[in-house]
Amino acid sequence: MLQPSKRVQQTKESYIRNILKVIQQPGMLSLAGGLPDASRFPLAMLEQAAIELAKQPSIYQYGATEGLTELREWLLNHQALAEDVIVTSGSQQALDLIARCYLNPGDRVLCETPSYLGALQIFDLAEAQTLAVRSEQDGPDVDDLEKVLASTPIKLFYAVPDFQNPSGRSWSLSKRKAVAELLAKYKVAFVEDAPYRELRFEGESLPTVTELCAGEAFFLGSFSKIATPSLRVGYVMASKDLLGPLKKVKQASDLHSALPMQKMLLSTVSHPDFTRHLEQLTAHYCLRRDALVAALDKHLAHYLDFEIPQGGMFIWCRLKHHQAYQIAAAALEQKVAVVPGDEFWPAKLKVDYQAIRLNFTSLEPKQLEQAVIGLAKVMQQINT
Amino acid sequence: MLQPSKRVQQTKESYIRNILKVIQQPGMLSLAGGLPDASRFPLAMLEQAAIELAKQPSIYQYGATEGLTELREWLLNHQALAEDVIVTSGSQQALDLIARCYLNPGDRVLCETPSYLGALQIFDLAEAQTLAVRSEQDGPDVDDLEKVLASTPIKLFYAVPDFQNPSGRSWSLSKRKAVAELLAKYKVAFVEDAPYRELRFEGESLPTVTELCAGEAFFLGSFSKIATPSLRVGYVMASKDLLGPLKKVKQASDLHSALPMQKMLLSTVSHPDFTRHLEQLTAHYCLRRDALVAALDKHLAHYLDFEIPQGGMFIWCRLKHHQAYQIAAAALEQKVAVVPGDEFWPAKLKVDYQAIRLNFTSLEPKQLEQAVIGLAKVMQQINT
Repeated sequence: MLQPSKRVQQTKESYIRNILKVIQQPGMLSLAGGLPDASRFPLAMLEQAAIELAKQPSIYQYGATEGLTELREWLLNHQALAEDVIVTSGSQQALDLIARCYLNPGDRVLCETPSYLGALQIFDLAEAQTLAVRSEQDGPDVDDLEKVLASTPIKLFYAVPDFQNPSGRSWSLSKRKAVAELLAKYKVAFVEDAPYRELRFEGESLPTVTELCAGEAFFLGSFSKIATPSLRVGYVMASKDLLGPLKKVKQASDLHSALPMQKMLLSTVSHPDFTRHLEQLTAHYCLRRDALVAALDKHLAHYLDFEIPQGGMFIWCRLKHHQAYQIAAAALEQKVAVVPGDEFWPAKLKVDYQAIRLNFTSLEPKQLEQAVIGLAKVMQQINT
Repeated sequence: MLQPSKRVQQTKESYIRNILKVIQQPGMLSLAGGLPDASRFPLAMLEQAAIELAKQPSIYQYGATEGLTELREWLLNHQALAEDVIVTSGSQQALDLIARCYLNPGDRVLCETPSYLGALQIFDLAEAQTLAVRSEQDGPDVDDLEKVLASTPIKLFYAVPDFQNPSGRSWSLSKRKAVAELLAKYKVAFVEDAPYRELRFEGESLPTVTELCAGEAFFLGSFSKIATPSLRVGYVMASKDLLGPLKKVKQASDLHSALPMQKMLLSTVSHPDFTRHLEQLTAHYCLRRDALVAALDKHLAHYLDFEIPQGGMFIWCRLKHHQAYQIAAAALEQKVAVVPGDEFWPAKLKVDYQAIRLNFTSLEPKQLEQAVIGLAKVMQQINT
């Protein structure tokens, strides 16, 4: 029997994938996923874009590996963060390409803890060694970051500076500048993953870390949370020198991303109504965040602590008394799904504290409270 | 400066990618690519499929990693070659997933020479060692195959048994059976890449090698040559056991393939008119093959030998007197593009003979003859 490669065997499993069938049971209230609210997809714009497809026979031929020229031009005009851009099959693929392209087995990658599980899986697949920097409410602990950078050669620093998954945290301007300086000093490339950046409910939008970096940086962009995820259109911006080798890996991976999807995405995000759609969407998610915050304050204040995120899709709750896996398993029996915080630590690192991640975008306010009531019951029942 | 990983540095460059800008010059007659004829895309069916998209809001949410259920069911009903199927972003991705999933650095992969360049790049990226089996007109040399299998542990045997790219060759039934038996005997998994299988101009369709294999096999399917390539929808069929770990890598790579593309592809290939479209397409390509064969016989018989392929997109020409790279470079100056045969050998193996690959699907019969006349001039001018 053919055995999976070492790189696959040592790759972290996805908790959500493993409980997917349970989550899909009728009556389940899931705070576990990271799904946008399907009722808020810009359907009228997508419909118009789909109908326009029919008039464009040229998009059915093989395309350029780097993506549709008109989409790439729009991206570079819209957000001039770097010299060049490659369109990818979601920003997930962009990160995978970077890892395959720049990491040799044993190379060290730095991330915050907790960190996005999909990124940890990618670093595992690249057989990299994932190290962590301590995370504070306004960004990484700069002293700790310098200590790590000074003590060992790091190839890439990966982070989500805006409304991170799972912590919901955003980096302050001063932290962004400090990190950019340190990375330049130690010649470490930055990978900025920004899928939630435009889901800001309040406060001022801050410059990307990529803009502030004097050294090398990749900016990963996504439309999954603000338009629709199923088109699988994302991008990576960086210098031409950095993107050149990526194209070679992209070509071997899938030749290029689907052209009709790139065209539909461009029609949608460049539509005059898209700005209004985005305003309405953030207002909608803000209401849901408020509903979850209120429910947590009302029913769970005794059992957990949390910070209120200024945007994004998640509230990260530190458990005062409980073990996260035990809570998650017991909650499933009450038909409430959450993700244990341990999932967001690299496999070989010690989990610093017990936590659960709660998503607030895919349930209605009433359901959010119902789910929190279910969690409260579970926490009361479990003796600590 | 960030340096590309060892796996990327050692991956073969694509000749076609490197001369792409030259090929795109006006007046260039390109026999170099592998493009289907865009004027034969099933546009009416694609248009109808695009309009239907507009009515299906559910396809805009995140989807299952293994693909759209209705497409997977259709594929398994349409062609029951194995227990399960994963939809991939083109069959190129399917092969890349298999390599990442099952090959450790240094593992040995067997292929025919010449072989599909995109596969060689994938094996390079996986840091596998690519070995070759001697190829005959009706399939691999079975004695040579047994010799290789008996002498060294091989993880996968990769081949294109129908109208191979670049050789145009197809395996006979007896060769298919013999290979299947040998692979079972030596417990080597088979990877059957079949993008040209349905482009048969004459002769009888033969069973897939996957069907004949008692042991482990992956069947890679594509719609790029019979419908449209730009949707990037392909698939891999195999046992559930073999596909399980692939799903994990697919999830880390791009979460899932674009759902609207899967839906459009399904609408197109399950359309009642699709069978007629395919008949017309093969008749159309058959005429082009005949035109290229006639032109080669008329103008180049003195300089090269070739076999007439029963289908597919390529004629493979062995050069009697010339060096392929020299011919290809001189032809470019005459505004004719071809691919030197050397490109289709694994980087570390000796090229057995000089050859060029000619594509006949993307030029009209008159242009095909014009290109051949250009080639004849070049060959006459170069002293040998």
